[in-house]
Amino acid sequence: MKFYIPTKIFKGRDCLANNYKELLLGKRAFIVTGKTSGRISGALEDVVNILDSNNVPYAICDRIGNNPTVEECFEAGKEAREFNADFIIGIGGGSPLDAAKAVAVYGVNSEMAPMDIYNCNYSVKPLPMVAIPTTAGTGSEVTQYSVLTVTDEHTKRSFSTEDTFYKVAFVDGKYTENLPVQITRNTAVDALSHLIESYTNTRSGDMTEYVALKGMRIWGKKIKALIEGKFTADDREELLWASTLGGIVIAQTGTTIVHSMGYPLTFYKDIPHGMANGLLLTEYLRKAEEVIPEKVEILLLNLGLNSLDEFEKVMKVLLPNDISFTKNELNEWVQTTVKAKNALTCPFEATLEAETEIFENSLL
Amino acid sequence: MKFYIPTKIFKGRDCLANNYKELLLGKRAFIVTGKTSGRISGALEDVVNILDSNNVPYAICDRIGNNPTVEECFEAGKEAREFNADFIIGIGGGSPLDAAKAVAVYGVNSEMAPMDIYNCNYSVKPLPMVAIPTTAGTGSEVTQYSVLTVTDEHTKRSFSTEDTFYKVAFVDGKYTENLPVQITRNTAVDALSHLIESYTNTRSGDMTEYVALKGMRIWGKKIKALIEGKFTADDREELLWASTLGGIVIAQTGTTIVHSMGYPLTFYKDIPHGMANGLLLTEYLRKAEEVIPEKVEILLLNLGLNSLDEFEKVMKVLLPNDISFTKNELNEWVQTTVKAKNALTCPFEATLEAETEIFENSLL
Repeated sequence: MKFYIPTKIFKGRDCLANNYKELLLGKRAFIVTGKTSGRISGALEDVVNILDSNNVPYAICDRIGNNPTVEECFEAGKEAREFNADFIIGIGGGSPLDAAKAVAVYGVNSEMAPMDIYNCNYSVKPLPMVAIPTTAGTGSEVTQYSVLTVTDEHTKRSFSTEDTFYKVAFVDGKYTENLPVQITRNTAVDALSHLIESYTNTRSGDMTEYVALKGMRIWGKKIKALIEGKFTADDREELLWASTLGGIVIAQTGTTIVHSMGYPLTFYKDIPHGMANGLLLTEYLRKAEEVIPEKVEILLLNLGLNSLDEFEKVMKVLLPNDISFTKNELNEWVQTTVKAKNALTCPFEATLEAETEIFENSLL
Repeated sequence: MKFYIPTKIFKGRDCLANNYKELLLGKRAFIVTGKTSGRISGALEDVVNILDSNNVPYAICDRIGNNPTVEECFEAGKEAREFNADFIIGIGGGSPLDAAKAVAVYGVNSEMAPMDIYNCNYSVKPLPMVAIPTTAGTGSEVTQYSVLTVTDEHTKRSFSTEDTFYKVAFVDGKYTENLPVQITRNTAVDALSHLIESYTNTRSGDMTEYVALKGMRIWGKKIKALIEGKFTADDREELLWASTLGGIVIAQTGTTIVHSMGYPLTFYKDIPHGMANGLLLTEYLRKAEEVIPEKVEILLLNLGLNSLDEFEKVMKVLLPNDISFTKNELNEWVQTTVKAKNALTCPFEATLEAETEIFENSLL
């Protein structure tokens, strides 16, 4: 077993203000954030104030939309180079946080072509990075992964190296307080999906198992709030922490087929990432139950749920979805998803038949 | 809350052989090990074979005894400089693993006087380090701490910086299989002490709490083996992992007064470090129970014990001790221990009276 989580994590209310020196990893900052996430959360303002009062020049790239493309990141990387940035600050949900990792690579490697990032084909180590998550779902602040959209391939692909962990993460629930209810739910289900896919992963072990179960216990206690759509500051803090724990465990084990099967739902149907996972989770767990029944039982116990039927009900309430799918679409997508590398660590054999069954039972 | 554990941990049988490239942090290795620990465990041979077959020159410093002094480490640091070492490999129990951290500092900072290490007064970053623990107690492989004996001050003192975490740790129970029974018990109690002192520490929180409780659950299941003095390979693996978990949590919270009060027992009476802690643990917990009764209950539950009386019995069986103490000695020592910085994070107020009571009830 390998366990590696080099990110220095600060957690709790005002952890950024209380540890602002840890933000200052260099002399010129390049901030990567979403169109609105950095501003609405208040995190961008807090960061800019700290940079200003410490005379650290910065440039802001706030063009990162949902599901950023390799090309967008490549362009932002150019800007970071032109600005002579020596560190990167990622602020936002999974999209800006993942994009920032690519910007950190491109930002010091002018010789690279965009797609070189998938071969880890770079000569200079990526710039050091700080993360401030503003959604409670991605866990990107503590993983090495960056999931980007490859337009030509009609899907998302992830790259990762040990150099693309954030150096520092500020995990403060207050930056998630302004999230709309449905985004809160979608991202929470993404976090849950990380916890479940790590725990049921064939690479799951020791440290990751109990961190994942702890994450599920925290998450399970927030089901009521998620259903009601009302969140106290504590709920926000705990949901964010469950998300960070989800990141910690997938950084070790990776995800399984729920993630790879979710990508086409996002790419072709524009279904938000967390919701895409959530639509598939129940049927995934039904298949997992056939081979690892004890683990699925423990998982439900830690979520405070009695059965997979109850789990399914929670997903249905949290993820209202009226998008329809055709058998043809699903058959086409499965040709690609079955080749994803996450299939290798699925607890059951992720054959074409198995994935087809999950797709059809979940979506038709 | 801050959580930081930058060490890349490899765990499990043959994890060194299976990941040998991760040992090679540089081009010239300086190995710090004990007089016998490196050889008896088999770890030194495994390391040397890997270095040889990869043409990495090395020097071995195997003079590190129990409770190494600042001066010993300073001298070893000189040797590392003269050898032009660019990385350090620590092999052994807490003494060599802690010493190696000091050697890593002195090894690149020729201008330092020995005691400068306590001001973190160095200009060059310490050499990168790899750890291979051969006892299941210290947790040093995943902490930033180095506890050295300061002869003039008649006690031990620790130094630590974020640069003195090991980069890589190979945690393989097989290297602890040849440990004599009593050393196994003493070191196991050291690990337990870390878990308990972190869990009851005022800085305890989230991540450290559940990692500590998990460590106690693992430890509790090994009480029978510890009492019988017979260990399977699995027992060794689990005890070592409990010890690593203990290191992970004290790296975040620090220890409390059990450690600082244990130091004079080692310095003046030559009582092994783990045993010294164990002699004080029960009375420490009795005092803790007055202010954090629920936590002490949970702690006992996770150890699989019904009461502090039962805990006391286990300690008495594991740590046979016929050394006698005088009231005068204890009164003298407490003048120093009460000033230790660990007193600040004790769950109850660590006054002169409180510490005197713990000393007297434990040792008279």
